[in-house]
Amino acid sequence: MKHPQYKIWKDLIEEHLYDFLPAIDSKSKTLQESMVYSLKAGGKRLRPILLLAALDFCNSDVKQGLPYACAIEYIHTYSLIHDDLPAMDDDDLRRGIPTNHKVFGEGMAILAGDGLLSAAFEAMTKDMLLYMDDAEALKRRVRASHTLIKGAGVRGMVAGQVCDVEIEGKTCSKEMLDYIHLNKTAALIMAPIKAGAFLAGADEKKLMALTTYGECIGLAFQIMDDLLDVVGNEEDLGKRVGKDAQLQKATYPAIYGVEASYQRLEELTNKALDVMKPYYDQAEFFNELALYLMKRVG
Amino acid sequence: MKHPQYKIWKDLIEEHLYDFLPAIDSKSKTLQESMVYSLKAGGKRLRPILLLAALDFCNSDVKQGLPYACAIEYIHTYSLIHDDLPAMDDDDLRRGIPTNHKVFGEGMAILAGDGLLSAAFEAMTKDMLLYMDDAEALKRRVRASHTLIKGAGVRGMVAGQVCDVEIEGKTCSKEMLDYIHLNKTAALIMAPIKAGAFLAGADEKKLMALTTYGECIGLAFQIMDDLLDVVGNEEDLGKRVGKDAQLQKATYPAIYGVEASYQRLEELTNKALDVMKPYYDQAEFFNELALYLMKRVG
Repeated sequence: MKHPQYKIWKDLIEEHLYDFLPAIDSKSKTLQESMVYSLKAGGKRLRPILLLAALDFCNSDVKQGLPYACAIEYIHTYSLIHDDLPAMDDDDLRRGIPTNHKVFGEGMAILAGDGLLSAAFEAMTKDMLLYMDDAEALKRRVRASHTLIKGAGVRGMVAGQVCDVEIEGKTCSKEMLDYIHLNKTAALIMAPIKAGAFLAGADEKKLMALTTYGECIGLAFQIMDDLLDVVGNEEDLGKRVGKDAQLQKATYPAIYGVEASYQRLEELTNKALDVMKPYYDQAEFFNELALYLMKRVG
Repeated sequence: MKHPQYKIWKDLIEEHLYDFLPAIDSKSKTLQESMVYSLKAGGKRLRPILLLAALDFCNSDVKQGLPYACAIEYIHTYSLIHDDLPAMDDDDLRRGIPTNHKVFGEGMAILAGDGLLSAAFEAMTKDMLLYMDDAEALKRRVRASHTLIKGAGVRGMVAGQVCDVEIEGKTCSKEMLDYIHLNKTAALIMAPIKAGAFLAGADEKKLMALTTYGECIGLAFQIMDDLLDVVGNEEDLGKRVGKDAQLQKATYPAIYGVEASYQRLEELTNKALDVMKPYYDQAEFFNELALYLMKRVG
């Protein structure tokens, strides 16, 4: 994505990504190595950037969002590590390098995921402890944390994963497909946008706009992911393609076909742009992002 | 344990244990079944009871502690589910019934653990949202949550698990053994006691006494666990014995011998009783518990 702010925020995240991991004792060095290995392999940093972008959109200092932005990246990374395990999707390659369990073994990969999820929550409550004398700031942090946690949880991402695992090889209804997409991916894309809005103390109108925007690009993101598994190439993606069809996964192109998938992608992108219209050039970053996600190749 | 309060608090926990799980959509019913299966199999409910006991010890309403007490039981249960996985301890039996992955499969067991850990955090932040207009109560909740999260995290339980996995079959120093015990088990026994004290707004003196008490009985609990794997019987324990020796685990009796282990157990119990002396009969429950844990058979 070409918007100059994307690189600025991405660099900020890269610079601080490890700041909120608990200082691990030398005795459990392998755990740290395993956690950091997967964090380092991270690509677009889309979720944390969305949190910072929402803060900026609400005219709030983006730097205060760093613990929460990094927390969502820890959560995202934990979900990928567990998702790649042999008992789940059984992937050997992620972002062009061997998956966590291929390098550190299954036991350590499970623990690295558990450790990253715990670290995410620890980062947020630790930040809250810094605002014990500022009731308003503390409340905004509680709301932001709750939002991120809900996105990650059993009504959010974990629910999506469960259905994704359960549906393999079975017939999937359109309703079920939407449910999987909404939870598996959109929840963790919507959550940081909403969390950023809460952290900024946004008014109801902005909160609603950001929530709808997040839902649209979250769904669009997953449809594009499904499409890339059909039409993309391994080099750009850093992972195997054609995997979904092989596993008989419930995907958008599998159920609606490639053309209808592109159409839905465009509808969702247009809805995301529409909802931002009242904010004109204040929403420049979000507008460009929606268009970029529709055209990405990796 | 015979203290009448134990049963009262245990019943209270059993009654409310499922209240703080997010209402799961019917589409991910298997996930809920899998999570509830392991929660129901739960035995002593020691960790949540400790949280309520700490509140009571500080003359505070125990019922306010329920979301946190249940959260620690969710965390404990998640840790057992993941610990039993083939890639970890590979256990078929837990508390007398088949382990989670034996019933629901490995993929679902991993997700059930992830779901329980997420549910624990969600329960706590959801409770915080109820106290947005009471700054003092909110702050006590933030402190309690942070304490529980730290106990579960990469400097707490996860760190202990990692070393436990890594050390298998290797020579373990006494220092390393203490580190494993302190983190793997004691952290999650200390944490609810401290969290209860924070929730009650305890003074520094009581907080220190409870912390030391928790550390002592936490270590004693793990030594007893190690001993029971040597001298216990499967019926009382509801799991296989002799497993530690078979896996060449670093245990107290393996490194110090059975007799020295009993001696250390007694020392720790006495230290726990000592630290509670200034509180006379206010500490009756904690005193009885320390003695009970030293003599338990399951």
